[in-house]
Amino acid sequence: MSIDIKQYTESIAEKAKKSTKFLRSLNTVLKNQVLNDLALELKNQTSLILEKNKLDLEDGKRKNLSDSLMDRLELNEKRILSLSNSVKEIEFLQDPVGHIVRGEQLKNGLELSTKLVPLGVVLVIYESRPNVTIDVAALAFKSGNVAILRGGSEAYHTNLVLVSIFKSVLRKNNIPEDSLVFVDNTDRSVMIPLLKLDKFIDLVVPRGGEGLIRFVSENSTIPVVKHDKGVCNLYVDESADFDKTLDIVVNSKLQRPGVCNALENLIIHKKYNHSEKLLKTLKDKGADLLVDEYGLSLFKANLAIDEDYATEFLDNRLSVKFVDDIDSAIEFIEKFSSGHTEAIISNHFDNIDYFQKQLDSAAIFINCSTRFHDGGEFGLGAEVGISTGKLHVRGPMGLMHLTTTTTILRGNGQIRK
Amino acid sequence: MSIDIKQYTESIAEKAKKSTKFLRSLNTVLKNQVLNDLALELKNQTSLILEKNKLDLEDGKRKNLSDSLMDRLELNEKRILSLSNSVKEIEFLQDPVGHIVRGEQLKNGLELSTKLVPLGVVLVIYESRPNVTIDVAALAFKSGNVAILRGGSEAYHTNLVLVSIFKSVLRKNNIPEDSLVFVDNTDRSVMIPLLKLDKFIDLVVPRGGEGLIRFVSENSTIPVVKHDKGVCNLYVDESADFDKTLDIVVNSKLQRPGVCNALENLIIHKKYNHSEKLLKTLKDKGADLLVDEYGLSLFKANLAIDEDYATEFLDNRLSVKFVDDIDSAIEFIEKFSSGHTEAIISNHFDNIDYFQKQLDSAAIFINCSTRFHDGGEFGLGAEVGISTGKLHVRGPMGLMHLTTTTTILRGNGQIRK
Repeated sequence: MSIDIKQYTESIAEKAKKSTKFLRSLNTVLKNQVLNDLALELKNQTSLILEKNKLDLEDGKRKNLSDSLMDRLELNEKRILSLSNSVKEIEFLQDPVGHIVRGEQLKNGLELSTKLVPLGVVLVIYESRPNVTIDVAALAFKSGNVAILRGGSEAYHTNLVLVSIFKSVLRKNNIPEDSLVFVDNTDRSVMIPLLKLDKFIDLVVPRGGEGLIRFVSENSTIPVVKHDKGVCNLYVDESADFDKTLDIVVNSKLQRPGVCNALENLIIHKKYNHSEKLLKTLKDKGADLLVDEYGLSLFKANLAIDEDYATEFLDNRLSVKFVDDIDSAIEFIEKFSSGHTEAIISNHFDNIDYFQKQLDSAAIFINCSTRFHDGGEFGLGAEVGISTGKLHVRGPMGLMHLTTTTTILRGNGQIRK
Repeated sequence: MSIDIKQYTESIAEKAKKSTKFLRSLNTVLKNQVLNDLALELKNQTSLILEKNKLDLEDGKRKNLSDSLMDRLELNEKRILSLSNSVKEIEFLQDPVGHIVRGEQLKNGLELSTKLVPLGVVLVIYESRPNVTIDVAALAFKSGNVAILRGGSEAYHTNLVLVSIFKSVLRKNNIPEDSLVFVDNTDRSVMIPLLKLDKFIDLVVPRGGEGLIRFVSENSTIPVVKHDKGVCNLYVDESADFDKTLDIVVNSKLQRPGVCNALENLIIHKKYNHSEKLLKTLKDKGADLLVDEYGLSLFKANLAIDEDYATEFLDNRLSVKFVDDIDSAIEFIEKFSSGHTEAIISNHFDNIDYFQKQLDSAAIFINCSTRFHDGGEFGLGAEVGISTGKLHVRGPMGLMHLTTTTTILRGNGQIRK
């Protein structure tokens, strides 16, 4: 590692750390004012944003990025409006800072209160989609944290203009512009030294593919909250009725296949009476089915192999597995799931109870779509992502998960006996 | 790394992982029965425990362990009784498993409940004191987790007999004895491969010196909850009265100097009227004072250097710093504190308010002893330790911090629009 890179990353992290003191004591009224101004300014600067976004799109074309990557990269007026709206939503979320999560008068008269305080510095490493830049910056700001943003090189110009708009709004409100820090060196070599700066950085959130998440977990001395893939499973019990099952499976798989809470593995009890009709209808609706040996006897499709069952397709492919009983379904899920979301469709009380108690995942859904695993749907508001880790937060990571606690004890001379 | 060590560590972790399924669904009545039996059996086996402890003490003497290490290693009848009592205390703590931390009916009729579930496998790495073996094993068991214990080599025979007593109680209650796993290879070389087994292990808790904690943070791909040193600070404002101040400082420093919540740095406002008397009395009561240049003009003592202010002495030494104002006190604390506990003694409302809002530590105490930073004193019961990290838990780590969440959604056909 060259001295330049080391100096560069340290100066960034130190700058961020220095701003924490100002930001952590900012009152909610001023924070909301900034977010209100930001939402407006994003709309006002639409043409500038589109101009910079065009540079990234041109670079992307030259680099032959895939259609789906190009789509994730692209902004247009409608997407900028939705970006602005999501900032307004964050403005209206309740500020978690100062919320007292535990308060007691202890036996010796000491008054204990444990309150939420900002974490400090939050490093977010993400890929392509430029809306993450604004979403995460606004969430970090609202919760009193300094964000260090490290976006993908494909979105460099777009990210840069979005950050500069945020900073102009900070300046206008007399807030130090280092309250948001952008890593403008997109070279991979800055990552490892950044991930060692636990002295300055309190949390790292990697949002992206498996490779990124593994890389961050293996190299970071900063605590990590992982947002890993979602290999979501849905089990259709023999007691499930056809119409509900079809609606739920179609919604889980096809409403938006490119996201982590979309369904990947459909598990069906061999005694379920409507398997053939279900598979046929799914195919008609656009699902690209991969089935096991048993399934091939019912339906013409490609054979699913173990690798398929462990894959987050993010497209219309759906792997299908037939089982003899609920225990086999559970065993299958334990083998292939990423611990994100497991669903059961059943009318049998004991089976539902058993399914729910046996499995250990972030979310277990009964008779509803896997697509509900989402901060907004859970009533938590905008989210940093869906944590697949077990520590600090599991499932939707919202504003309050960008905080830690401080315990205040108020006394009048108490000492310990 | 030899293949043997790799196989050894993997077999241990896999064994632990396999037991999680049984343990996570164990009901509270049976868990409490096991703890009740364990508390009894520890008393019944006192002579066996003392016999094994003697082996460690003899080894320790041969290795010339320091008096304080020998003291920490030693068990006697009274200490075994207190070990047994602490298991009874854990028996009487409320079981966190199944507790619903959030429950809502969502707009679309879905019923959401987020409940606490065991983390799974918890690796605890600790040094010398054999009581940690029983405390941690009992806390992990009560919260439905499989503990992997990796104690220090000095306490090998004692740890082994304590674990075998726990296992005999498990067997008696028809619970798989792999619900508690002991790393019987005390060689340092097993640590690194163990710390890479995030596939099987959900959390690692290092309890011990700075070296151990750094080593674990740097080598672990498993999430870490640090229990780092406590460089605790206490600021005496000019408005503080003498008697209360003396009582609080004596209690903070001298009641039990060898623990993390004992005071290390005393900061005094230069205009405080009773400085000389305070220092003299502290010395008379046994404190070994190190003071700054200003202090030398008031009191004959050794000069404190920066390194002293950053050190957790764990003995009667107390570093003293004089300041011109509260801002200098805060700046001093920010420079030297480990973020564990900061206290202020003052009668001035605004100063107290300012002190509390400016500092970012796990605990901020007003007009009381630093020694209250403890799970028991906070009313949380027995603790795994005091977390100095910000993620998952900050401050006393109790039973509920050995859990994560699962969110259950119950529906009747809901799909996402």
